[in-house]
Amino acid sequence: MNDSLITRGLKKVRALVSDEPPALSPKVRDRLRAQLRECVEGRGGEVSARQRAAGLARTYQGLSEAGRRDFLRLIALEFGPDPARVAKAHEAYQAAVGTPRQWDAEAGLRAALRSGRIRILTQFNAMPQGVKFLVDLRAELLGFLEKDTDLAPLDRELEARLTAWFDVGFLELQRITWSSPAALLEKLIAYEAVHEIRSWADLKNRLDSDRRCYAFFHPRMPTEPLIFVEVALTDHLADNVQHLLDEAAPVFDARKADTAIFYSISNTQVGLRGVSFGNFLLKRVIDDLKRDFPRLRTFATLSPIPGLAGWTKKHAQALAEAGIDLPVADLAAGAWAADKAEARRLRDPLLALAARYLLEAKGRGEGAPPPFDPVSRFHLGNGARIERLNHLGDSSAKGLAQSFGMMVNYLYEPEEIEQNVEAFAADGRIAAAASLRRQARR
Amino acid sequence: MNDSLITRGLKKVRALVSDEPPALSPKVRDRLRAQLRECVEGRGGEVSARQRAAGLARTYQGLSEAGRRDFLRLIALEFGPDPARVAKAHEAYQAAVGTPRQWDAEAGLRAALRSGRIRILTQFNAMPQGVKFLVDLRAELLGFLEKDTDLAPLDRELEARLTAWFDVGFLELQRITWSSPAALLEKLIAYEAVHEIRSWADLKNRLDSDRRCYAFFHPRMPTEPLIFVEVALTDHLADNVQHLLDEAAPVFDARKADTAIFYSISNTQVGLRGVSFGNFLLKRVIDDLKRDFPRLRTFATLSPIPGLAGWTKKHAQALAEAGIDLPVADLAAGAWAADKAEARRLRDPLLALAARYLLEAKGRGEGAPPPFDPVSRFHLGNGARIERLNHLGDSSAKGLAQSFGMMVNYLYEPEEIEQNVEAFAADGRIAAAASLRRQARR
Amino acid sequence: MNDSLITRGLKKVRALVSDEPPALSPKVRDRLRAQLRECVEGRGGEVSARQRAAGLARTYQGLSEAGRRDFLRLIALEFGPDPARVAKAHEAYQAAVGTPRQWDAEAGLRAALRSGRIRILTQFNAMPQGVKFLVDLRAELLGFLEKDTDLAPLDRELEARLTAWFDVGFLELQRITWSSPAALLEKLIAYEAVHEIRSWADLKNRLDSDRRCYAFFHPRMPTEPLIFVEVALTDHLADNVQHLLDEAAPVFDARKADTAIFYSISNTQVGLRGVSFGNFLLKRVIDDLKRDFPRLRTFATLSPIPGLAGWTKKHAQALAEAGIDLPVADLAAGAWAADKAEARRLRDPLLALAARYLLEAKGRGEGAPPPFDPVSRFHLGNGARIERLNHLGDSSAKGLAQSFGMMVNYLYEPEEIEQNVEAFAADGRIAAAASLRRQARR
Amino acid sequence: MNDSLITRGLKKVRALVSDEPPALSPKVRDRLRAQLRECVEGRGGEVSARQRAAGLARTYQGLSEAGRRDFLRLIALEFGPDPARVAKAHEAYQAAVGTPRQWDAEAGLRAALRSGRIRILTQFNAMPQGVKFLVDLRAELLGFLEKDTDLAPLDRELEARLTAWFDVGFLELQRITWSSPAALLEKLIAYEAVHEIRSWADLKNRLDSDRRCYAFFHPRMPTEPLIFVEVALTDHLADNVQHLLDEAAPVFDARKADTAIFYSISNTQVGLRGVSFGNFLLKRVIDDLKRDFPRLRTFATLSPIPGLAGWTKKHAQALAEAGIDLPVADLAAGAWAADKAEARRLRDPLLALAARYLLEAKGRGEGAPPPFDPVSRFHLGNGARIERLNHLGDSSAKGLAQSFGMMVNYLYEPEEIEQNVEAFAADGRIAAAASLRRQARR
Repeated sequence: MNDSLITRGLKKVRALVSDEPPALSPKVRDRLRAQLRECVEGRGGEVSARQRAAGLARTYQGLSEAGRRDFLRLIALEFGPDPARVAKAHEAYQAAVGTPRQWDAEAGLRAALRSGRIRILTQFNAMPQGVKFLVDLRAELLGFLEKDTDLAPLDRELEARLTAWFDVGFLELQRITWSSPAALLEKLIAYEAVHEIRSWADLKNRLDSDRRCYAFFHPRMPTEPLIFVEVALTDHLADNVQHLLDEAAPVFDARKADTAIFYSISNTQVGLRGVSFGNFLLKRVIDDLKRDFPRLRTFATLSPIPGLAGWTKKHAQALAEAGIDLPVADLAAGAWAADKAEARRLRDPLLALAARYLLEAKGRGEGAPPPFDPVSRFHLGNGARIERLNHLGDSSAKGLAQSFGMMVNYLYEPEEIEQNVEAFAADGRIAAAASLRRQARR
Repeated sequence: MNDSLITRGLKKVRALVSDEPPALSPKVRDRLRAQLRECVEGRGGEVSARQRAAGLARTYQGLSEAGRRDFLRLIALEFGPDPARVAKAHEAYQAAVGTPRQWDAEAGLRAALRSGRIRILTQFNAMPQGVKFLVDLRAELLGFLEKDTDLAPLDRELEARLTAWFDVGFLELQRITWSSPAALLEKLIAYEAVHEIRSWADLKNRLDSDRRCYAFFHPRMPTEPLIFVEVALTDHLADNVQHLLDEAAPVFDARKADTAIFYSISNTQVGLRGVSFGNFLLKRVIDDLKRDFPRLRTFATLSPIPGLAGWTKKHAQALAEAGIDLPVADLAAGAWAADKAEARRLRDPLLALAARYLLEAKGRGEGAPPPFDPVSRFHLGNGARIERLNHLGDSSAKGLAQSFGMMVNYLYEPEEIEQNVEAFAADGRIAAAASLRRQARR
Repeated sequence: MNDSLITRGLKKVRALVSDEPPALSPKVRDRLRAQLRECVEGRGGEVSARQRAAGLARTYQGLSEAGRRDFLRLIALEFGPDPARVAKAHEAYQAAVGTPRQWDAEAGLRAALRSGRIRILTQFNAMPQGVKFLVDLRAELLGFLEKDTDLAPLDRELEARLTAWFDVGFLELQRITWSSPAALLEKLIAYEAVHEIRSWADLKNRLDSDRRCYAFFHPRMPTEPLIFVEVALTDHLADNVQHLLDEAAPVFDARKADTAIFYSISNTQVGLRGVSFGNFLLKRVIDDLKRDFPRLRTFATLSPIPGLAGWTKKHAQALAEAGIDLPVADLAAGAWAADKAEARRLRDPLLALAARYLLEAKGRGEGAPPPFDPVSRFHLGNGARIERLNHLGDSSAKGLAQSFGMMVNYLYEPEEIEQNVEAFAADGRIAAAASLRRQARR
Repeated sequence: MNDSLITRGLKKVRALVSDEPPALSPKVRDRLRAQLRECVEGRGGEVSARQRAAGLARTYQGLSEAGRRDFLRLIALEFGPDPARVAKAHEAYQAAVGTPRQWDAEAGLRAALRSGRIRILTQFNAMPQGVKFLVDLRAELLGFLEKDTDLAPLDRELEARLTAWFDVGFLELQRITWSSPAALLEKLIAYEAVHEIRSWADLKNRLDSDRRCYAFFHPRMPTEPLIFVEVALTDHLADNVQHLLDEAAPVFDARKADTAIFYSISNTQVGLRGVSFGNFLLKRVIDDLKRDFPRLRTFATLSPIPGLAGWTKKHAQALAEAGIDLPVADLAAGAWAADKAEARRLRDPLLALAARYLLEAKGRGEGAPPPFDPVSRFHLGNGARIERLNHLGDSSAKGLAQSFGMMVNYLYEPEEIEQNVEAFAADGRIAAAASLRRQARR
């Protein structure tokens, strides 16, 4: 049941919604409202209340999509805090500032803001797979939210609660191997978002002795990886993902590895958007690898540049400036890549284009505008440095279409990380190798 | 280290505190303040911030008791919300009520109230045994709080966070048996709060085939029971705890049991005061027992009456009204209990005293005043009925001292529970057997 | 290393062997002989001897196939019992019969027969995966044995030792599910000997909620199933294996099942030939299924008839007697099966052929000759009854080639099993349904 | 049930036996004989035979001690090999020696010697705790055997089978800690044979961070340690067991340890007499300790000298030769030990006595007679060297009584072990420190 829910969540609900008439009949609505109220009031004791909440959760699961949206609107709109009560508590608080009563008054204001919404949602946790249910519910909520901003307060409160529940202190780092349950490995195949896992043989190759795969798990969702990273142990800064994933390539002797390449990081739970684990995952994985392979010196990624083609389309002059005479569509189609001479000819201009994009293209945001590219944003935010661009690092159709075949290595240099994070956070300063800056100036 | 902390927590810190001069030198204080600020601001990224928080936590552990109190005061008093910012957010919120901006404004007000305090504490969770650390920290905080109410806001926020983290949906019910780790069983011996476990042989007897023991665990505190309950499987409503715990008594064939007697429930974590599990534990245990022993019909407790002697001391006339001619001190000393005739003579008057106490003695509280007796409050609040008083049900020195040897059975009658909870919550109505009401009228 | 060994074992070594010149040089031979002797004598203590034995085992693994054969010949021929010592011990034994010294003398004779061979092999067990090593070694030995009967005594002793080690009392029954390790499931795919598992999707379908899969494991070979059985839970006596394995077929509600169909049983370890588990596996699985699905009434197989086509080829008159006018080759090619009318026409004659084959075709053996068909031999030996023949029960190329598309149900009727085993063992009497006997008489 | 069996086994059956009349009535005897015969013949198939065997095993458990002895006599005397069949097979074997038929004939002779006895016992393994049952049965058998040598052949065959089943390759080394199940730790308390564990606190002290405890387990007896060893991590060659076991002594920082002291090794299963694990256990434990504590340099024991007082009693002149003027009884009573001056006076003479005992006192045995002292025999046989005698190393009543308070360190010097084992096995040569030889010459 949950499985179908998440699938729906993943395959984007974002269809209908919002100005349509409500999907619940007034009668059903009234019944649900009454039940929600009982739930909030905790009638008959907490134990009974939880049992009733589980009943409500099952009702929710049985509704149509439109019905579920209505149900969530009911919670969002009718179980918020009472502005009058808030006003009164606020008045008392301000009056108490500086007096010994300040702390009580602060707690009072907080209590007045505490809503029935979160009390309802928390009680859904009593279901056998309650945590997963709430994560899936939020995935769906995020879909509805795209057209129906009335649901935002519910989303905000749910995000805050999930942030508390999925605090990194609660997460378990696990290695995933070929001896992991098939039911779990199957999920890697489904969730891998960077370089599609094409078959069980492909997956097995990614779990071979010169590879490592790690995931974070929540103790109450033991069969659902929250995020996972795939690592190759090697002796050089990998520059080509097709080589890396070549099932026929010989296995490297991991004990000789001096370099760990993070070539894929995938978040799996749409419903945990805004709850960050990626940075902690990288930290924990690096620690684990160092312990097992004391000869490792270099920790770097081989990453896609997912926003390049889209951005180039909108900034047509960038091509000319880089000295490229092909239209974006031809670059993305990639026929040129099969022609060795043509590929060689385009090499430097494309590297210039990508270097400028990574160093200069900005997205929207407060303060110093962040990099346009989401993957770059993630790694720079974690303290990495842009180390090297790789021409034809990903010659798959997808790679050509999104970044004209280019890939990039982000380097995690332990001594630099903190200051990179700081400089990036404070001024948006981007750490990059000198060679890359040169390519950008070309 | 944590162990010594909790011991200190358990063995009551409540000594010093409050009007004494601060224990941290101004210099140390300034350094800590700066570190706390960095922690709140998340300088250098979340990963680094967590590492620094772990450092702060270790600093805390190394301080003297007075130093730790100062440290907590620093957090409580200097990292609260900013009243001016709150005022502004509140104004915006009230202005937005009824408009589409209401939800954003609500979130804004909530954000203004979010304090650095909880952000700091949450980050301590990054320590290897972070959850336990925070639970122990709160145990200590509660000790300080007895004399230093400035710490109340910190306690409130920590309690709210622990309530979210220890949501019953996250807890694991485990059976504890003689095959459980000795390191765990040792904790039962230490934590048992109702009928002291005198030896490993006593403990083994409580885990025999006609007994069951269950506990709730948090996934991040896998070796610490949060609460545990001891159950005897039998064929009658047990009336005497010495018989129940007699190591020489023959083992009852549990498959023939129709009655489960809950004879001891102990909370173990001082630092989780205010986070309730007891009711859920009983519910889960009853479900588990029903599945394993389908012939069980009766679920009841054999409980102490811990407040009786204390209450009687303050209400001297109650003795006379019940027809008792011994002073409280003599009753509590219990020499009379060894004299069969005297014990028989006192039987009915003592039962009358206890019945009145349970039905009529009230504590403080809003609305309908709750029962004075804490155990009674717990079981009545969970929907049980006072079923029977047992004269000389506990003839130990402790039993005589606290309740003149009397014990009581609370009965959990599945069909009654919800309405009992409701009536008790709404009007303070106490469910009790007719015979008990008769004894009270004697 | 072991893996390649077993593969070689499975893919039949049976190539070279025997009259070729030895593959070990005299020098290597002498060195090995000396090492084997040290091993037998236990020089320097048992601990050192085991370590040296592990060294010998590694030497063995590093040899060529011909070298390994020589190595085994060395053990077989030079480390047997000493006939003169045996003669002396036997004389003493016979002289002692009927006297109090008989038992010592018996032990003495036994000791004289104890060979260095088994002492050597047993010590190989000290390797980290020693048991698996010995099982694989025997697989190879069985291959050599086909052309080199000198190795027989070694095989006999090894079989006896493996029989002791793999006593069914040591085996663990485990359910295999989609949550089992992928590395284990992969072995099912490799080992399935009856109906090939075509893909991971096919495998997943065989582990769905209306299916069960069980295997026996040895505690020292935890990742190697020894034998496994696949079961379908259904509501009728299944008659067609393609339907049974159809991935698109709806899932049956297992709680409603009254019939368990064992549709595939595969031994996996060539090296355990002669060590029987199959009968115990069926017994244990039936017990387990009964407990989980109390409504099950019928336990039966849907089995191939692997020897039919081969036998028919050698007994050409059987076709004519059954009234079949097609040559064996055409029957086995199976074009007729696609022609509905032709298939219908051939139905009864084919059923008559198969019924006679199962009831009358005999193999070689002492006493009452056993059935020619190996699958039939297995199930009849376990006490099953031949219940029903299924025309076109397996329309795959393999099914047509080996049994002209026919399959058979063996029925395990709890009350009949013992007497069937007895009658079959004593007189070779075959239990079969009346309808099948009628078909044979056609 | 098994538990009571082993207790009976341990607490010495050795009472009655042998010339008494049989305890089974002729009728019961006949019934049992018929059942045993069915069991041997495997009537109705192996599965049924095992079930019947389990029934027989339960019958056995229900008999009186005398009944069980009769039952075992029945198996021992009536289910042995048939001398006539053995004679025939032997003739065929001798005739075949040197011909290609030799190997078949060898197997034939072996088969003729195979007895129903072991077939019966093996089938008992089918009981749920069959292995433990057989180990306990042998414990009892060993008790009977003391007075009834007719049972010897059964014991010999059972020992051989248990030796195969308990091959060290099947055993699991496990660390035992304070987090091990209480039910397991309780067994350590019961089984500790060297220095009694006086309480749970004593046990906890032996499992503290400067101690290690290891045991071997069989996969089918997962809650029964077969043998266990207690180790102290320290920085000197320990010379006093009371100091070592002092609960009040401070905990040593194990990371600084350079010495591991094995101060207690206990076999637990009487029924496994003759199956050796001790040497393998020491080897495995040393390997494990080296991995965890790379600074360890010295591996030695602090051992009792259990045979000294007994031997001295029988060799009265030894006292005088060592220059001791107290009678044995006074030495063993130990009053002298409390008198410092007297203890000092006796020091050198006692050391001389002990040194001579260890170097010269011999027991019975073929070839070079082995040391009289069983502990010495064990460690010298494993390749240790007698390193140092410790006056008043064990001042407990037991220590004084058995060895006049002396203890001894055996040293395991990795480079010496093999040659020590060899020299000891070949010529009975005892490795000992020069100082000890000097003490002996005094």
